[in-house]
Amino acid sequence: MLKVPDHQVAGHHARDGKLGPLIDDSGRFYKPLQGDERGSKEVAFYTSFSSNARIPDHIRRFFPIFYGTQLLEASDGSGLYPHLVLQDVVSGHHNPCIIDVKIGSRTWYLQASEDYIQRSLKKDRETTSLSLGFRISGLQIYDSEESGFWRPEKKRVLGFTADDVRVVLRKFVSSNSPTDSDSEPDCSFASAVYGGSTGILAQLLELKAWFEDQTIFHFFSCSILMMYDKEAIFKGMSSGAEIKLIDFAHVVEGEGVIDHNFLGGLCSLIKMISEILTSPDENPNKTCLQDYEKNHSYLENGTTE
Amino acid sequence: MLKVPDHQVAGHHARDGKLGPLIDDSGRFYKPLQGDERGSKEVAFYTSFSSNARIPDHIRRFFPIFYGTQLLEASDGSGLYPHLVLQDVVSGHHNPCIIDVKIGSRTWYLQASEDYIQRSLKKDRETTSLSLGFRISGLQIYDSEESGFWRPEKKRVLGFTADDVRVVLRKFVSSNSPTDSDSEPDCSFASAVYGGSTGILAQLLELKAWFEDQTIFHFFSCSILMMYDKEAIFKGMSSGAEIKLIDFAHVVEGEGVIDHNFLGGLCSLIKMISEILTSPDENPNKTCLQDYEKNHSYLENGTTE
Repeated sequence: MLKVPDHQVAGHHARDGKLGPLIDDSGRFYKPLQGDERGSKEVAFYTSFSSNARIPDHIRRFFPIFYGTQLLEASDGSGLYPHLVLQDVVSGHHNPCIIDVKIGSRTWYLQASEDYIQRSLKKDRETTSLSLGFRISGLQIYDSEESGFWRPEKKRVLGFTADDVRVVLRKFVSSNSPTDSDSEPDCSFASAVYGGSTGILAQLLELKAWFEDQTIFHFFSCSILMMYDKEAIFKGMSSGAEIKLIDFAHVVEGEGVIDHNFLGGLCSLIKMISEILTSPDENPNKTCLQDYEKNHSYLENGTTE
Repeated sequence: MLKVPDHQVAGHHARDGKLGPLIDDSGRFYKPLQGDERGSKEVAFYTSFSSNARIPDHIRRFFPIFYGTQLLEASDGSGLYPHLVLQDVVSGHHNPCIIDVKIGSRTWYLQASEDYIQRSLKKDRETTSLSLGFRISGLQIYDSEESGFWRPEKKRVLGFTADDVRVVLRKFVSSNSPTDSDSEPDCSFASAVYGGSTGILAQLLELKAWFEDQTIFHFFSCSILMMYDKEAIFKGMSSGAEIKLIDFAHVVEGEGVIDHNFLGGLCSLIKMISEILTSPDENPNKTCLQDYEKNHSYLENGTTE
């Protein structure tokens, strides 16, 4: 039985009769091939990547497992449609907190169409991509059984300033409610999620070391998903913090050059997360997002299974 | 007595009655302030940088010493004109080999005028800035007492492909003549210049570590000069290999974010130089520049003092 994913924070959604990804109970994620050349490019990437013996295992684990392609009934009821069959990277998590971070100050590349370049460049300038080297594309932060998830709407997320991003990365690892505008994010879970030898920072640093060296692929408009289980921490278990790279419709060949665009953005994200770990009590900008929230209500009561 | 510098490989030249930088015998470099806001921005950068106590000494040595500004007779004969007074970074070198590498895949920034952004973006796309994360802006390679320097003309340098850049970085540390199109660059001096605990790679890595952390300045359209003395190596002396950062008319405040654009390009340069050190005999592209040279003559007999 295929169903609509509960924890998809960005991209097209298979809701209201639209075409979008589906999941099953065995931990697989079925992503409809994007109609234009993006679909075939993403298949080409997964095919090439999964058979490339030069990808070390400790890096491969950051990518969804690829199970090929399959014709499936599309979620929009239009009949059989080709889908990528991938590992459902959130299937091992219960009520996960998730941030989708699109890496790179530039989401376009020389081989793209001029129309795509101009649209991407505009979006890079309007979001934090240009200033920070990355932008948040979507997120969900689990609040409580009563209130479910904080899922700011897409338009709001794409309007995040650099300071908003700093605050969200702190809220992501805080015990107080993400919608509480009267208290500072306490960053109680920073060390459990970002820190430690297996935490998110350690994983990002492993990825960074690979990007300093690999010249096989350039990953444009690709995201890093960061996720963990808040309730597991409450129960004294591991946070399950992990990162996964997703969205490979704009991967091009590296041609012997490192992916300096991805690497630069990754280093910027690493620096920002390091600062939360070293100064969890210092909020460089305490008012902007809080003020915004006094005037807006975001909380969409998410499905809590 | 002020005179025109012998070893300026990029930028405006004080020749033929034009406005350009001058040097004196005491090791100072007099750079006319650029007429528009670039001049005042460069003064502001040097003033801020030279008084900033957070710049560690091992990083400060990569920047020219700043001695203030001074009104001087301009090289174009137009009368008194304000000049930056800087350390002449090549004054300690004799017949130096020099490459000027403009770092960053993006030489523009949000605060610039739309006209500047569009012109810079076009140049970034047309050169290797976008693909490599840096471009060569100028160079001189000392050949011999008879033939002087190889100084490819500006138009040719800006037309370098990624493969041309790889070949030039090899020619830079080779004992065979840079204009010899029949033999491969032998990279004889790679370990003396790029390698070792005080070589260019070690210096670039020190700079990289600083850029992973510093959020004070963002350096757009700034260059790293790499230089050394070939004859010193012949005499069994140190190569004098060193790097210096120059050109700060487009430095903006970091606002708490790392300079991911500079860092990405720097990492790409580091990777390319590392490859020359690990595989000095492998020329990934043996024909492109060589073929070009069979049909063109570059050698401009440089001043050899």
